[in-house]
Amino acid sequence: MKDSAMYIPTYEDMLAAHERIAPHIRRTPIRTSAYLNELTGAELFFKCENFQEPGAFKVRGASNAVFGLDAAQAAKGVATHSSGNHASCLSYAAMLRGIPCNVVMPRTAPQAKKDTVRRYGGKITECEPSTSSREETFARVQAETGGDFVHPYNDPRVIAGQGTCAKEFVEQTDGLDLVLAPIGGGGMISGTCLTLSTLAPETRIIAAEPEQADDAYRSFKAGYIIADDAPKTIADGLLVPLKDLTWHFVANHVSDILTASDPEIIDAMKLIWKHLRVVMEPSSAVPLATILKNPETFRGKRVGIVLTGGNVDLDRLPWTL
Amino acid sequence: MKDSAMYIPTYEDMLAAHERIAPHIRRTPIRTSAYLNELTGAELFFKCENFQEPGAFKVRGASNAVFGLDAAQAAKGVATHSSGNHASCLSYAAMLRGIPCNVVMPRTAPQAKKDTVRRYGGKITECEPSTSSREETFARVQAETGGDFVHPYNDPRVIAGQGTCAKEFVEQTDGLDLVLAPIGGGGMISGTCLTLSTLAPETRIIAAEPEQADDAYRSFKAGYIIADDAPKTIADGLLVPLKDLTWHFVANHVSDILTASDPEIIDAMKLIWKHLRVVMEPSSAVPLATILKNPETFRGKRVGIVLTGGNVDLDRLPWTL
Repeated sequence: MKDSAMYIPTYEDMLAAHERIAPHIRRTPIRTSAYLNELTGAELFFKCENFQEPGAFKVRGASNAVFGLDAAQAAKGVATHSSGNHASCLSYAAMLRGIPCNVVMPRTAPQAKKDTVRRYGGKITECEPSTSSREETFARVQAETGGDFVHPYNDPRVIAGQGTCAKEFVEQTDGLDLVLAPIGGGGMISGTCLTLSTLAPETRIIAAEPEQADDAYRSFKAGYIIADDAPKTIADGLLVPLKDLTWHFVANHVSDILTASDPEIIDAMKLIWKHLRVVMEPSSAVPLATILKNPETFRGKRVGIVLTGGNVDLDRLPWTL
Repeated sequence: MKDSAMYIPTYEDMLAAHERIAPHIRRTPIRTSAYLNELTGAELFFKCENFQEPGAFKVRGASNAVFGLDAAQAAKGVATHSSGNHASCLSYAAMLRGIPCNVVMPRTAPQAKKDTVRRYGGKITECEPSTSSREETFARVQAETGGDFVHPYNDPRVIAGQGTCAKEFVEQTDGLDLVLAPIGGGGMISGTCLTLSTLAPETRIIAAEPEQADDAYRSFKAGYIIADDAPKTIADGLLVPLKDLTWHFVANHVSDILTASDPEIIDAMKLIWKHLRVVMEPSSAVPLATILKNPETFRGKRVGIVLTGGNVDLDRLPWTL
């Protein structure tokens, strides 16, 4: 097992990941909209990772970790702490391989998230909604089960897996001037950097972040990791801070980080629902929000946007709240 | 110009239509969901006609009519009466060819529908919301403009165009046991019959209809066209009655018509939004609603479902009303 705190995944790791996970993920389609092209003056390509069976790109990294385990470790399964898409995607991948998946989740997490993890066979251990309780609980679960810890993003296997999305994106579009993805912990952005810095070094990579959780933006400007305590934004997939591995990729390969306000994110989300006719979550709308806010940066360009996830509470859509 | 009241379109007309419209429409993708397969016990293939640029399969028939006009008629353009997807799709096709499109629409039609037609360059003439006013107004508009009347469904060019969807569906799935589509006036179902009766005669065709607008169901059982006065259902794309051409196909090639209640349609719509993560309108949910209601008919079968359209008011979703 490689040490996830030290090892920086390579382009070859990404290629191996793609071969490993191809039978278990979808090669998601690209959607375009003449209307949104006209509105932005750019040629926009949306990669629909919300169309993965469990609804998010995180199935790529999770599958790479799960299907890369040797038989002895696989028997003990995997473990993680997450209340979001990583928990359900890791459970889904573990279900496909038929191995245990233990998830530590705050007891306050939405019932729908718990239901999804359980539907995929994940076993939930609840903790209090605090960092200390989560860490204590997770240490206990891991000691009891021997499950391999798969971090939501700060893990080379996960980053190599997320990088497979950018490889498909290049193959499906014959090249892009820019690629935008939302940034939270930085897993998707890091995978994108990993792949494009070798495969398409001329393509600029821009991270898009909510103004109300702009720790990556401030880290990028400062030159070191800044982590916020408890940011609040409608883009609830993007609340976590950068870690050493993802900071490596952000610091070395990201061209810029742009931010958008929550109302701008909601407007962009509604535009995508209306004109692309896909269901995606607020976090995935941040890139379009930043394009609409900075039109001169994108006009006339071929722009790829990763629609990262599609798990949203249909009874509580942001524009109806 | 062929007489739309008499001429029954052929398989060759459909093939010619596909060649004519291919540059102007999308070859829409198929979506699947392991979860919905498990729920129904069937293998479901959803053809995403909601992903057409103007958001509905009707761009196929409209494009076939518009791009089939000779130069003299094209100069005078096209005309129709519709307050739904046909109006916007005909305007869109006319815009692509650069010819006039006149649409007669009740003044009470939703503002969003009028806005879409105008965005595509369609010229709206408003009438009172009555059949007599619509007919009078349309006759005047047609006399003034000389625009070629493109009926929303009772037109052989339109039916041949809609039939191109089933051709792609067969090509993309390697064959299906059953195909389901919603039925209103019967344009999509007729096109499906036209194509499959030659290309895949072993595939059964089932029409799905709202209980609250079940005139096609009653016509099918009675053996002649029954038209209702003003049916009311959440599936507002399916309010119109069969006409002679579509009745021909329904009577000769449809295996069965199944119905579902409005609450069942809304439940099915929400399932599709949640698990396929596509935005589609209530009318397009009727097939899945009938499958969930008649599981024994579909269990173990390969079932194609046409998601006919994706134009829905995001501020007034049926489960939030």
